[in-house]
Order: sequence, then structure tokens, then C-alpha cells
Amino acid sequence: MTQNTRILLNSRPHGEPTAENFRFETTPLPTPGDGEVLLRTIYLSLDPYMRGRMNDAKSYAAPVELGAVMEGGTVAEVVESNDPSLAVGDIVLSHLGWQSYGVQPARHVRKLDPSRAPVSTAVGVLGMPGFTAYAGVLEIGKPQPGETVVVAAAAGPVGSAVGQIARIKGARAVGIAGGPDKVAYLRELGFDVAIDHRSPTFEDDLAAAVPDGIDVYFENVGGHVWDAVLPLLNTYARVPLCGVVAHYNDTEAPAGPDRSPYLLQSILTRSITLRGFIQSEFVKSHYRQFQTDAAGWIADGSLQYKEDIVEGLENAPEAFIGLLKGKTFGKALIKPREA
Amino acid sequence: MTQNTRILLNSRPHGEPTAENFRFETTPLPTPGDGEVLLRTIYLSLDPYMRGRMNDAKSYAAPVELGAVMEGGTVAEVVESNDPSLAVGDIVLSHLGWQSYGVQPARHVRKLDPSRAPVSTAVGVLGMPGFTAYAGVLEIGKPQPGETVVVAAAAGPVGSAVGQIARIKGARAVGIAGGPDKVAYLRELGFDVAIDHRSPTFEDDLAAAVPDGIDVYFENVGGHVWDAVLPLLNTYARVPLCGVVAHYNDTEAPAGPDRSPYLLQSILTRSITLRGFIQSEFVKSHYRQFQTDAAGWIADGSLQYKEDIVEGLENAPEAFIGLLKGKTFGKALIKPREA
Repeated sequence: MTQNTRILLNSRPHGEPTAENFRFETTPLPTPGDGEVLLRTIYLSLDPYMRGRMNDAKSYAAPVELGAVMEGGTVAEVVESNDPSLAVGDIVLSHLGWQSYGVQPARHVRKLDPSRAPVSTAVGVLGMPGFTAYAGVLEIGKPQPGETVVVAAAAGPVGSAVGQIARIKGARAVGIAGGPDKVAYLRELGFDVAIDHRSPTFEDDLAAAVPDGIDVYFENVGGHVWDAVLPLLNTYARVPLCGVVAHYNDTEAPAGPDRSPYLLQSILTRSITLRGFIQSEFVKSHYRQFQTDAAGWIADGSLQYKEDIVEGLENAPEAFIGLLKGKTFGKALIKPREA
Repeated sequence: MTQNTRILLNSRPHGEPTAENFRFETTPLPTPGDGEVLLRTIYLSLDPYMRGRMNDAKSYAAPVELGAVMEGGTVAEVVESNDPSLAVGDIVLSHLGWQSYGVQPARHVRKLDPSRAPVSTAVGVLGMPGFTAYAGVLEIGKPQPGETVVVAAAAGPVGSAVGQIARIKGARAVGIAGGPDKVAYLRELGFDVAIDHRSPTFEDDLAAAVPDGIDVYFENVGGHVWDAVLPLLNTYARVPLCGVVAHYNDTEAPAGPDRSPYLLQSILTRSITLRGFIQSEFVKSHYRQFQTDAAGWIADGSLQYKEDIVEGLENAPEAFIGLLKGKTFGKALIKPREA
């Protein structure tokens, strides 16, 4: 009999997550009630925000409870439907979390059209990561033609879209990534300059790449990349901030000195805008236009994407731990084996 | 024969400025050329930004050179005119710096109407400090009716205008100042709550004053006030940042830990906008409307102001050193004695 495999939050990490923070469980398949559907996970999306959910700390979303299924976006197939809007075999965007099956109300999922785009893109370039890039660049970064846009984690699903959208809007795109393969990939994507943040000459490389300074820095990393970027930001620079993955595993504040006064002084003297955001803020106002724009850009080749698909739900914890260390190359997806 | 007394930057301060950083000089009165006027200083404005000009560091404005006259805004009387637009006896807003006389091109000064408002307000509530408050609150803070606006250095010329303008716009104003006299003054001005940052219960007092959190924090101080404010900022809070006077005398970064990652995380998880600005950015677009609005508010009593006038140019260094320590109560003005 087919069973459901679920990955639960077993304990809260202290610093880097380890295998012990996760627990596997096998349960009977759940039964959908009225208006609900039973779904089989085709792709589980792994994203850096999940690290935050593992903490017992106030944030923009509630933490995952101990013993609960790890949270996550999924592309799934309807295997049983108690709602007239969905039929068996339909593919939907859903939020099942780290499990191979799950039940959701039909109204909480969105039916995908596999003829329009590969369904995996619904959690990637055409989904939350792509929309994060779109909203952050266009609504906060607002790059003007000829301006310089810098993005870190540029080979990732958000960063790669940031750079490409910046170029579509006529800006220069400078991408920062870790390692020669990712740097080469950025050049393939058309980034004007691609830089390896692991290089011993990283700071000089970055300064040389932005002779006119930086007008927009899309911040999703923090750490030493941010340190190198800050002195190069121009007057009136805009910094959309949607992640600080370099600090997600911090167990305490880094050693001093305290550089926050320097940060404030920099923002002050150069009239910089630092704006935190979560893509959900812009869904109502911009999601429909994003879908249209992004589909068009994918169709004409100006917006490309890359996926890093790991087979087997059992490999999700290891893949996630690697994601936080920059080991993933492209949008991180887990493809559970069919039970 | 009347002579000019000038105060020069003698040496660059290391930390707090001292009397030794300034040097007095007496020179013959300068002679105005064509299109120029000879001016006598009536009021010299002392402002925190001047501390930045004493450093040899890149900022939004060039530093004062060693041996040059300290920079500063002035209200002055025309004593000799070589330009048809100005007559002897006219009062003008000018930028003579720390000296009792000076020559400026007539087109660089602005004639004041003493019947409209006391001329000292041209460097205060109707001048740069007032406009800093106006632009920062309305263009960056954008308080909505019922929202909570917090401002530090609230008894100063910028902060007092910030709170009053916030109230004019229907927001709750919470003012932070140092010492019971200033706190009492804030209550006179109509601030909804006034708090003493020197109190041992300051953090608790602030939290109690903002039961619905903080929507706008007008930042001009930094230091321990900012530390207390940051955890109380609401989602989508706006932080216009126009000064960090608590750090102007820092000689090195404060001891650790490094709290800048915490700052970034806070901005991220609460979608906060932190925006540095200098009022000059908004002069072209908003100065005229500011003059109209502020004059109206002063006339109807909704925008009050206080001046701290020190007689004698020779007292400017001591007054300025005190200003940076929070000893000034109201807009700091130096009134040179008539020579």
C-alpha cells in the first residue's frame, strides 16, 4: 500500500542545520475531505527562507513547530479530488511541505498549464524566486538605463533573474557568485561582469567592475559581499534587501567592532535607501503583470533559468544544508521518487 | 577701524572637538567687488553637520580645509552693496561661516522680510533645520493619521519640528530628549508622549509609549536611542535618517559584537525602509511649499520653536562643543557683538 513519507522538524538547529534536526516518518495516505484534493509531490522547492522557519523566533512568518512537517512550496499532481475544480492528473502549485503526499483544500492550490512552461518553473523563475527578483528590482531598485545593478548569489534563482531583468531594463548587470562554474554561467546569461567572491582579489575585482559605482544592490546574502559593496554604493543608491543567507546560521552576533554606526553613516552621507521586503507584499499589485512579463522574457530568451534537481525526498535535508553553504547551482528542487 | 573676526579650523579633532581645534584671527574688512555685498553677521547658526566638515573624510560635502574659516549659515546685514538688488540695511540669509563680516556675491544670498518672521528663523524653523524635518517627515516618513512617529533630539530645531508636523498630519508624536527640562518642553509643544533618554527606565518608557509599535522613526541621533527603537519598529516602518550625532565624535568603531547583521535582519524581516537624506535633495521640489506651509503653521500656533542664543562670536567653539553633547536647548545661534 502506498504510504506518505514526511520530513519533520526534529529539533531546532544551533547554527548550521544537521541531519539530526530532521526526522523521517511514514504514515498512511491522508484522505481528502469535501473540497479537498490528495496530492503527490512532483517537486519540492528548497529555499533559504526555510532556515528562518526552523528557529523559534518572531519573523514575518511563524516558525515550524517541533514535530511538524517542514514547510515548503511544491508542484504536485492530483491523485484524488473531492472538488469539481480539479481532476485527477491535474498539476498544481501547492504548499505541501517536505512530504511525498498531502491534502490541501482545492482553493489553496493553483492549477498549472504544462503546455505553457515546464511545471517546475512554478516554484522557480515563474514563481516565488522569480517574483522576488521582479518586485525587488522593479519596485525598489528601479534601475535606470545605464545604471549599474549588482547582485550576489547571482547564479541562484533570485539572483540570476535580478541580473537578467536589470539588463532587460537597460542597466548594466554585475553578478557575484562562488566558484568558476557559476561565474562562467553568469557570463552565458549575459551579465556584463561576473565575479567570484571566493577569489582573494574579490574586493578589487568588484571595484574594477563598477567604475561608475553601484546604483542598485540587490541584497540577499550579507556577510563579506555586503562589506565589499557598501563603500561602492553611489549617492541615492537603492538596496532591496530580501535575504541575508550568510547570517542565517549565526548563533550569536559576529565579533566586533560594531559596524552598525558605520552602516548608518554610509546610508546618511550617501542618501542610500535600504528597504527590506518579502515578495508577498507585492503579490496583489504586481503578480499578474509579472507572470505576463516573465513568460514573455522566457519565450524570447532574455530570461533564462537553471535547475538543480536532486532525486529522492530522503536527500532533502542534505540538499538543504548544502544550499545554505552555496553548494547548489540553480534553483534547488527535490524530486521524490514515485512510490 | 572695524575689523573682521574669523574662527578658523586650526586642527582636525580626534573625537570630541576641543578649543585647540579652533583659531581666532582678526583681519581688515574685505572689500566687495562688482555684484558683491559686504555683510555683517547678525546670527551664526550652529548645526551638528559642522562636526563632519571638520574631518578630512569624504562625505556629501567637502571638508573645511585646515586654516580656512569654519563653515556655517548666517543671517547678516548688508553694510556695503555693489549690486543693485540689495541695499545697505537689508537683512539676508547667507553662508558666511564663523566670522563677523564677509563678502558674498549678491546672487548667493536671499533677502529676508523682517516683517514676515523674526530673521533668526531663516536658519531655524523656516530654514535648513525646519526644512530637514518637513522633507524627512512628509517625503520619507509619510505618516498616516493615527500612526506613531518617534523622534529623538526632539527638543532640537529638527526634532521639535518633526513631532509638530507629525501631529499636524494626524499622527501620534513621541519625543525623546535628554533631561527633565527638555521633556517638559516637549509636553508644552503638544507631543503625545515625551521621554527622557537619560532615565534608567528609558527602554521600558519607550516601549510603553508605543503600544502599537513605531511606524515612523525620524533618526538624527543613533546610539542607544536607536538601539531601543529598532526592536519596536513595525512592519513597513519608515526611517528617515538625517544624522547620527551620537557617533560624530567616534574615533573608531564601537566595541563589538558587530550588530550590523542584526540590523539587516530586522530591516529584512519587518520590511523596513531606512533612507538617508540631506535636505538639499528636496529643495527644488519642496522648498517653496515648505515656506508657505511652515509660515502658516507658525502663524496659527501649530509649529512652535525655541532658540538658544549665545552672545559673542568668541563663544562659538564652546557652544558648538556643547551642542554635540546635547547641552543646547533649542536652535543654537551665535550673536556676534556689534564691532
